[in-house]
Amino acid sequence: MSDNSWKTAITDIGPGKIAVRGHDITEVMEKMSYAEAVYLILKGELPSKAEAELMNAILVSSIDHGASPPSVLAARTVMSGGNSLNAAMAGGVLVIGDTHGGAIENAARIMQEWAKKSGDATEIAAELVGWLKESKTRMPGFGHRLHKIDPRTAKLFEIADRNGYGGKHIKLCRAIERALEKILGKQLPINVDGAIAAVISDMGFDWRLGKGFFIISRTPGLLAHVYEEMTRERPMRKLGPPPYEYDGPT
Amino acid sequence: MSDNSWKTAITDIGPGKIAVRGHDITEVMEKMSYAEAVYLILKGELPSKAEAELMNAILVSSIDHGASPPSVLAARTVMSGGNSLNAAMAGGVLVIGDTHGGAIENAARIMQEWAKKSGDATEIAAELVGWLKESKTRMPGFGHRLHKIDPRTAKLFEIADRNGYGGKHIKLCRAIERALEKILGKQLPINVDGAIAAVISDMGFDWRLGKGFFIISRTPGLLAHVYEEMTRERPMRKLGPPPYEYDGPT
Amino acid sequence: MSDNSWKTAITDIGPGKIAVRGHDITEVMEKMSYAEAVYLILKGELPSKAEAELMNAILVSSIDHGASPPSVLAARTVMSGGNSLNAAMAGGVLVIGDTHGGAIENAARIMQEWAKKSGDATEIAAELVGWLKESKTRMPGFGHRLHKIDPRTAKLFEIADRNGYGGKHIKLCRAIERALEKILGKQLPINVDGAIAAVISDMGFDWRLGKGFFIISRTPGLLAHVYEEMTRERPMRKLGPPPYEYDGPT
Amino acid sequence: MSDNSWKTAITDIGPGKIAVRGHDITEVMEKMSYAEAVYLILKGELPSKAEAELMNAILVSSIDHGASPPSVLAARTVMSGGNSLNAAMAGGVLVIGDTHGGAIENAARIMQEWAKKSGDATEIAAELVGWLKESKTRMPGFGHRLHKIDPRTAKLFEIADRNGYGGKHIKLCRAIERALEKILGKQLPINVDGAIAAVISDMGFDWRLGKGFFIISRTPGLLAHVYEEMTRERPMRKLGPPPYEYDGPT
Repeated sequence: MSDNSWKTAITDIGPGKIAVRGHDITEVMEKMSYAEAVYLILKGELPSKAEAELMNAILVSSIDHGASPPSVLAARTVMSGGNSLNAAMAGGVLVIGDTHGGAIENAARIMQEWAKKSGDATEIAAELVGWLKESKTRMPGFGHRLHKIDPRTAKLFEIADRNGYGGKHIKLCRAIERALEKILGKQLPINVDGAIAAVISDMGFDWRLGKGFFIISRTPGLLAHVYEEMTRERPMRKLGPPPYEYDGPT
Repeated sequence: MSDNSWKTAITDIGPGKIAVRGHDITEVMEKMSYAEAVYLILKGELPSKAEAELMNAILVSSIDHGASPPSVLAARTVMSGGNSLNAAMAGGVLVIGDTHGGAIENAARIMQEWAKKSGDATEIAAELVGWLKESKTRMPGFGHRLHKIDPRTAKLFEIADRNGYGGKHIKLCRAIERALEKILGKQLPINVDGAIAAVISDMGFDWRLGKGFFIISRTPGLLAHVYEEMTRERPMRKLGPPPYEYDGPT
Repeated sequence: MSDNSWKTAITDIGPGKIAVRGHDITEVMEKMSYAEAVYLILKGELPSKAEAELMNAILVSSIDHGASPPSVLAARTVMSGGNSLNAAMAGGVLVIGDTHGGAIENAARIMQEWAKKSGDATEIAAELVGWLKESKTRMPGFGHRLHKIDPRTAKLFEIADRNGYGGKHIKLCRAIERALEKILGKQLPINVDGAIAAVISDMGFDWRLGKGFFIISRTPGLLAHVYEEMTRERPMRKLGPPPYEYDGPT
Repeated sequence: MSDNSWKTAITDIGPGKIAVRGHDITEVMEKMSYAEAVYLILKGELPSKAEAELMNAILVSSIDHGASPPSVLAARTVMSGGNSLNAAMAGGVLVIGDTHGGAIENAARIMQEWAKKSGDATEIAAELVGWLKESKTRMPGFGHRLHKIDPRTAKLFEIADRNGYGGKHIKLCRAIERALEKILGKQLPINVDGAIAAVISDMGFDWRLGKGFFIISRTPGLLAHVYEEMTRERPMRKLGPPPYEYDGPT
């Protein structure tokens, strides 16, 4: 096989024809919400009504978080250097790594691995938190530097409950929250990343797509910031004079 | 003013509080579609029902176009080099420049500039096409290398018509299509980029946001390709042996 | 011609053979400095002794400028988000646009365009500064926010003078400095970007390569910062609480 | 400590003053080669004559490898999408991950870990190759898809030998080559990545800088390709019609 052979099973293209996972694009444009289209293109099948509602809530939940996240800092900095809108947005996406937006992926990986174990959610959660304690590992997706209770978590689970939606990952997620308090004596409520991780796991998505959902969700926020930088600020951003200091050899 | 002062009017954040353009995130999660949230965060106000439907159709319309676009080529190549999902997606976004996805921005700029002129749409279009002819400029957003008739254009305008939506930019856009045929003798039907340009112009968006809508729309497609590359292909992509040749000094 | 045909005249590759612009790589490794190899690969010919010395001084001159430039801010921010070294360095390169590092390109463009005019350097410079005054344009490559006199400029020109090197662009550059003071009454000494622009123009490089020389030069500096961030700082960088404020709707 | 506190020990900046690791930039510009400056900024100390020669050879060795590597494919693709020079170069750097250019880092990590073990190079190499065999791991930095014997390796080691330079990592590297043949019965000669890994390890560099040396070295090559794309090719690169096929649902 040549290294140059490219194959794809995502979208079929021909003159006058665009079909995403076998669905004609014009039908998707009219009959589906964008959230349903996102589900379709990533999963290859249509969501249920509950899944469509949840996917919409997931995408909305992380659309922006003010000017403080590092992805915004990088995106606005690239724009401020005299660059194009797409380069600035790419700069923002570049930052969304293991410590910023990465909690969805890591939490989903742990939930998907542990949910396979035998026992009910409470038992598995106890075992998991015991392991976290022993290995001095932090459980991603729980606790938040700013929000004591993350309002987005409550809303996501409310939508799931109202639709009678949820499987072993959401159950395990809630059990972990209780076990963290019981075993570690710490209040570390499920944050939005943990809640998204549980929901996409119950939807059957591979945890390796975790950062991707965050990136899709945050892209409009990055665009809004880049546009705000372009239209409200003068070039070029830099640190200093005061906020950094040299502490090397003289 | 220090270079380090950052201000933002997009999202207000505080403990237990996230408000996008003054709207509580949990309400947006439940009551709005993602397309409406995108409209809200970029415009600072809520869309009408017609605008919500159109924004949804716009975001769906460009969600993917198979494996051939250069943004997919770059995204899959970054992934194939042994990199992270977000780096690969950033690589795809980096490509979305003036010649790939840039037609929305350029078409919207021309439409917004010319729609301000006096005269009705037919007169302005005739003058515009005359200018294109004289300056040997190609009108962005018309004609397509693959689709003789772009099926997405018809659907977008059908949704607009059904809702009685549309102002001077959609009128001008349609008049340009007729003028291109009448004056240049060329059938250059409005493609999806041209149609999006007209619709977002009637919505009141700055043409400089044009590439941004395309980037938001295409992000799930890029994710699907990057994931397909990760799960179906072996590293690492390269050109050759045959498809490139050296033609420099020996 | 297919869109997939790739040709290159830079490096010829075959089993056991790598030849850059016709020069065997093992000979270049032993007999040339890296600065000479950079000249060779970009120009397609070997530099003179003076050109080699100047290219070396150019590459060294911009190797780093502390933690304040926006490219460093972005590179360290990407690293701080939990990403790979190459993604962080790419984030830094992304920032090097029109307002950061872009002065070389813009100054070289102006110098190359005006040096073609008739008249001696003093006459051309007077005309150019007159045009700048009338059009209220800032001359890139002159003046510096921090350095009243840029020590790197003096050193570059000293190396040129000692080697008897320099043509019409260096002459024009010096004449512009004098004309800015005489006509505008402003002391705007040539900064390192202006000096590099003049030297690479006399070397015969296209001004469109301008940012490229800066990027090559700064890459080790970006690496040093990214490594410092990786080894000395905790993830993750963010703005706030104090340094940014929300000023949008409540 | 605030998240906004930035410190650096790399370069000290003040009016009229730029000092890299305590060395005035104008002295470095005149008295040091760029390769020496790279060593200085990354190590914090000056190289010996042998180290300067080797660092120069390392930087030259990977300056370009024709149009086939994925970093070139991505860089040219970004440029071809109608983007800026720096965005295209960033696109190239983004690809330099674990499977492209990553061998230096991985080989250096293994060499630095194993060189600490007791025993002479031959013993350690035998143990290492045994472990590779058992764990079915490929030794990075040995063998090359194109070059049976990598001419750059021979030259690097020749320079080291001529200068009497080399410590336990170069010794181990050579012992691994012999052990691979003896134990696995495979001729997997040290390639340039393996040779660079051994040399920078003997220089005392952290293996985590490995990709960085490759990125510095390759940056001029990426610039040459991006410039060639800009000046010789028409926009926009895409795959197809023939070279990719859809194999998903209809």
